[in-house]
Amino acid sequence: MINIVKIGGNIIENEQKLEVFLKAFAALPLPKILVHGGGRAATHWSSKLGIDSKMLDGRRITDKKTLEIAVMVYAGLLSKKMVAYLESMDCRSIGLSGADANLIWSVKRPVKQVDYGYVGDVKEVNTEILLHLLACGITPVFNAITHDKNGQLLNTNADTIASELAVALAKEKKVQLVYVFEKEGVLSDLEKDIVIEKLDKKYYRQLKEKSIIDKGMIPKLDNCFYAMENGVEKVIIGGTKYLENEKALHTEIKI
Amino acid sequence: MINIVKIGGNIIENEQKLEVFLKAFAALPLPKILVHGGGRAATHWSSKLGIDSKMLDGRRITDKKTLEIAVMVYAGLLSKKMVAYLESMDCRSIGLSGADANLIWSVKRPVKQVDYGYVGDVKEVNTEILLHLLACGITPVFNAITHDKNGQLLNTNADTIASELAVALAKEKKVQLVYVFEKEGVLSDLEKDIVIEKLDKKYYRQLKEKSIIDKGMIPKLDNCFYAMENGVEKVIIGGTKYLENEKALHTEIKI
Repeated sequence: MINIVKIGGNIIENEQKLEVFLKAFAALPLPKILVHGGGRAATHWSSKLGIDSKMLDGRRITDKKTLEIAVMVYAGLLSKKMVAYLESMDCRSIGLSGADANLIWSVKRPVKQVDYGYVGDVKEVNTEILLHLLACGITPVFNAITHDKNGQLLNTNADTIASELAVALAKEKKVQLVYVFEKEGVLSDLEKDIVIEKLDKKYYRQLKEKSIIDKGMIPKLDNCFYAMENGVEKVIIGGTKYLENEKALHTEIKI
Repeated sequence: MINIVKIGGNIIENEQKLEVFLKAFAALPLPKILVHGGGRAATHWSSKLGIDSKMLDGRRITDKKTLEIAVMVYAGLLSKKMVAYLESMDCRSIGLSGADANLIWSVKRPVKQVDYGYVGDVKEVNTEILLHLLACGITPVFNAITHDKNGQLLNTNADTIASELAVALAKEKKVQLVYVFEKEGVLSDLEKDIVIEKLDKKYYRQLKEKSIIDKGMIPKLDNCFYAMENGVEKVIIGGTKYLENEKALHTEIKI
């Protein structure tokens, strides 16, 4: 079973939480893959450079300068920091963008009402080299940068990268996909912190209709259902505690 | 024969020269390794961020902020840009720091008269995984970032990384090391652009004594002789033209 773990932005931003997470991740058995973005870190560096982060309906518009910052922060600083930390715990890891060994090929999102700029939608995952790295005992650490095979880097949603990797690898191996974030799971009641233990499509539809579910969770959950419907064995949304102990509170996606 | 090619900073800085170089590099037979730094690009981003680049006798002092910028620029922007470009020419490549898979372990330079900050001196190259990547047809693209195995990233001279990789791999395979820069070779007369075709230690000593050789070339040449004295088959200093055609003007190091 390949464990694909996506780490949420709120954990990355907090040095202490990040260390606890990486310790738990390093302790997981092989084979495993880590996927990260790092949204607010890019915003932080952009503002230092006097570049405004352009957002539209909560989504970042990636112009040329914003792309450069995303590549520097995600594929540079965050990627290598995490790899150095994992290596210090003897977790043999390599930080990878989708451009590396053409692992994730994407296409620039077509301009319709909105031009999102240098944003890539995943087209294909090159599982051959990926499986080879895993077989060598290497843990790939994917950042949210992909490429179009014509030399252009593209910014890609990290939740989507995680689900696309899971779906592609599920054609060859059993895969578990875990989205780790700052909560312990999907909440049915935001105020009372009540975690939904099992979430199927019907229940999900109800929660959306009643606007109970946090808006930011919808793309993540859509990725979860996409993975479950395309061969992934198990999809979980939970906190770092779930990595430490499978019996900890978490949400399991059901179809 | 493994070809290890180090690209000079002046080529990286010029988009057009970089493309010509990468085309020539992509056309080389496998196995091969690319090594790059990117000095002035880091200075450029530092000044954009209002951070002074502290230099001492032409060497950069790497404080915490400068290290972060070096990691972002070398391991992020330059590394992934080059990989995306090589991939567009079907050169299967992975951008790597020394932290990745613990490929290059270094130690923080001890503080004597000068505290160089987060600068690493290479201690060991992990050739096992490196040879494995090469055997898979992958071209490693090394940047100038290493790590200390305790989670700390370190800034390391790219010329030194190239020679250390060459020496380590020479224990297992035949290795050619090529330093590509903006000139066609080491010059015996800076004004007349006369390229020295063969440079041995005796001649090198004379050139140094007579201050004929450019000061900036000395650490590079020391790396060349170190490689030649430690099992590397052939060491060359030349221009991009040498990659395109072995008969082009170049300097060959002799011991």
